[in-house]
Amino acid sequence: MIETPFREAAGTPIQTSRAGGARGRVRIDPPFRDGLRDLEGFERIWPTYWFHRASGFNLVVTPFLDVQERGVFATRAPRRPVPIGISVVRLLSIGEGAIEVAGVDMLDGTPLLDIRPYVPEFDSYPGSRAGWFDESNSTRCSADDRFDL
Amino acid sequence: MIETPFREAAGTPIQTSRAGGARGRVRIDPPFRDGLRDLEGFERIWPTYWFHRASGFNLVVTPFLDVQERGVFATRAPRRPVPIGISVVRLLSIGEGAIEVAGVDMLDGTPLLDIRPYVPEFDSYPGSRAGWFDESNSTRCSADDRFDL
Repeated sequence: MIETPFREAAGTPIQTSRAGGARGRVRIDPPFRDGLRDLEGFERIWPTYWFHRASGFNLVVTPFLDVQERGVFATRAPRRPVPIGISVVRLLSIGEGAIEVAGVDMLDGTPLLDIRPYVPEFDSYPGSRAGWFDESNSTRCSADDRFDL
Repeated sequence: MIETPFREAAGTPIQTSRAGGARGRVRIDPPFRDGLRDLEGFERIWPTYWFHRASGFNLVVTPFLDVQERGVFATRAPRRPVPIGISVVRLLSIGEGAIEVAGVDMLDGTPLLDIRPYVPEFDSYPGSRAGWFDESNSTRCSADDRFDL
């Protein structure tokens, strides 16, 4: 389970890169805690989680950073056919079954599915062309209620 | 469903960055194809998929790029408590319900769960410290059968 300061979609950061360092806590149930060994050396992690407040989906949506409709698979919108989210967050410390993190963009109480380490060789492509997103000059940082979460 | 040249774990690339550009095809079922609109402008995508050949998991594993045991959440090993995979692949072209991609590290026939665009602002942290991985000097590029897939 992921604890964050955000109770409602409106006002929640739209991405971790626009979260202004908002703090959160990723809780791991006791049977799974042995799997956290050696995670502390990583600066960032990928929590995988369930968009538990999303119900249903649309194949075409207007994303937060655009004013036009786009195919849902060309966006990071939360109402998806399979409502699973991934986000890079900064790892601050690991305690007894809880990871303190910074840069959260999930709603409080989000169910955790997995954690994996962020590895630049596998995950980082800084110059990658990004379609409609490259043309967006929106400086928006937080969500509104358009996805009805 | 994801089509790749790889039928068995042994010999399959361990990560897309070590896949040497291996080609694959991501097939999208007809009811979901409208969601692909505008994806073509992105250079890379994140397929999310099911590790369908993984059965069970271990909380401590010896990853392909190391000789020591590590907690599974500090690795990208395929046998995980929730066996969902994410990989960045290069988008080559989009046809009728099929995306041609390069740099695949999935087994042939892998079930697809989702597709999202790779957006450097959200996903790219080139200098991120990467724990045991930073100390690994393994040049291994492909898997063996240690995870019994």
